Amino acid sequence: MPWPSAPGYAAQMDARPPLLDTLPTFADVLDAAARIRPHARVTPVLRNDALDAMAGARLYFKCENLQRAGAFKFRGACNAVFALDDETAARGVATQSSGNHGAAIALACRLRSIPATVVVPEGAPKVKLDAIAAQGARIVRCAANMRARDAAVAEVVADTGATLIHPFDHPDVIAGQGTAAMELLAAQPALDAVIAPVGGGGLLSGTGLALRALAPRAQVWGAEPEAARDAYDSLASGAPITDRIPDTICDGLRGHLSARTFALVARDADGILLAGEDAIRDALRLAWTQLKLVIEPSSAVALAVVLGDPARFSGKRIGLIISGGNIDAASLPSLLA
Amino acid sequence: MPWPSAPGYAAQMDARPPLLDTLPTFADVLDAAARIRPHARVTPVLRNDALDAMAGARLYFKCENLQRAGAFKFRGACNAVFALDDETAARGVATQSSGNHGAAIALACRLRSIPATVVVPEGAPKVKLDAIAAQGARIVRCAANMRARDAAVAEVVADTGATLIHPFDHPDVIAGQGTAAMELLAAQPALDAVIAPVGGGGLLSGTGLALRALAPRAQVWGAEPEAARDAYDSLASGAPITDRIPDTICDGLRGHLSARTFALVARDADGILLAGEDAIRDALRLAWTQLKLVIEPSSAVALAVVLGDPARFSGKRIGLIISGGNIDAASLPSLLA
Repeated sequence: MPWPSAPGYAAQMDARPPLLDTLPTFADVLDAAARIRPHARVTPVLRNDALDAMAGARLYFKCENLQRAGAFKFRGACNAVFALDDETAARGVATQSSGNHGAAIALACRLRSIPATVVVPEGAPKVKLDAIAAQGARIVRCAANMRARDAAVAEVVADTGATLIHPFDHPDVIAGQGTAAMELLAAQPALDAVIAPVGGGGLLSGTGLALRALAPRAQVWGAEPEAARDAYDSLASGAPITDRIPDTICDGLRGHLSARTFALVARDADGILLAGEDAIRDALRLAWTQLKLVIEPSSAVALAVVLGDPARFSGKRIGLIISGGNIDAASLPSLLA
Repeated sequence: MPWPSAPGYAAQMDARPPLLDTLPTFADVLDAAARIRPHARVTPVLRNDALDAMAGARLYFKCENLQRAGAFKFRGACNAVFALDDETAARGVATQSSGNHGAAIALACRLRSIPATVVVPEGAPKVKLDAIAAQGARIVRCAANMRARDAAVAEVVADTGATLIHPFDHPDVIAGQGTAAMELLAAQPALDAVIAPVGGGGLLSGTGLALRALAPRAQVWGAEPEAARDAYDSLASGAPITDRIPDTICDGLRGHLSARTFALVARDADGILLAGEDAIRDALRLAWTQLKLVIEPSSAVALAVVLGDPARFSGKRIGLIISGGNIDAASLPSLLA
């Protein structure tokens, strides 16, 4: 495996020698594809004449909003849950997420018939809690800060022997997310670039693994809200920035790169492209009115960066990973206004 | 071709002998499939765990909201436009529709590089006019009554020699609409029933042609708003009822059966199922929040009748044709309220 090339990265990696041993590879993505195949959907790849005309490019939308539990997160969660040996699995799985990963873990554990515990901070939207509870997972509430969350998860793990499956900083989760890009390339092999939203970097890392193996000449771009540009600045500065509190409508992209996803993104991605909040809202409306898809703001950022950078993408064949479609009905009028 | 079996129908048909000669057959659906193949999309068939659980059945959604121009209407319009001989086609096509058929004709004519004229009544939503104009069609405004519409279309036809392509009372249009059910059966052959919304009856007629040939044991149901139950009452009374002015949020289902679509529906469909406006709104919200699809109210009626009649559909495999996704963004807040 080549050494990450981002400036300053080598120095950081020297301090963490075990990390490179746990970076997933494309072989892990292939294993994930086989493992999740009985459970996950092969989501459709859609095109749209009007959006192609607006972008001056040929756009292929990989519709993970149509994935089970409404987001690509089910791929990684399913892979990680089904990769556990039977004895470990029987003790259950724990995670902390008020969003798509929590619902995905809950569904994956239900399918494997093992207990799931999801730690959720106070203030999480009821619709998300309902989605988690509907899968039969146990919900543990905690205060809305990282220290309280970590303590609550640690307590669950100590009490039950459950395995912690992190939303993105986990090799099996990253490998699972890479299966979306694999399917996209199977449906449309001739792509010049693939764009994936970046929050914690699990999807972008997995996308990079798939593209570097299957379409090494295609570019891989992350799409990030300008208002949550920690991944962009992390690549520029050579180390993951983790101390910001982003303010963006893209609730799924408020996470930060981990050392692991930073290493993969720095090695495999061509860069991060930024979009402002207004451009993200415009893209969201276009997805509704033109694509006829309910997508969440975190997915709209990929379309926003394409429409915002016509010079870069003009005449190209671009794959966009529509990461999810979980959105509060109550928030729609304001998002679409 | 068997004689229509609805009570009272034979008497009416005796007065119109030419009609049966122009009823399309399954062979016409096959021709349509070949003709539109280079132009129309093979739309995905989607499933959803939560909706299956609610229905107590296995639901397969044929997503014509993802069809070009946002509705199944493109299938029939494309078939009718490309079935014209070159000399006739060169004089252009005319139709009257402020809705999906108008945009579909405009797109089909653009693809065949022939002129299209769409007669649109005053008061039609700007978003629909924009969709028609964006395809390069000429728009002719007229007063918002049927007499003014018919006069305007007749004038266009007299002036230009254009061919009138009716939204549903046209054999090639009906045959084209039948290709959606053909594709649905290709994706999921083992269906116990297929449900299609019914307005003018073009989609339901085409669906019946496909099902009777390809899956003769499967049931075919029309879904109609209780507030626009002219098709239901037409079947009960044995003749098409055409003198009502329905008041329903399903703007695509305000049309009435013609003699031709009545004949086909009476022969091939198992019946019409009704849904109230509240049930249609509930189904619309479920499509958005669970299926992650933007569908129009006229499509939600098919889901509404399934959820409203669990005894009939429990344990069955049901195909639902999601007819379209064209909806005014401005109307979303009220639809979601």
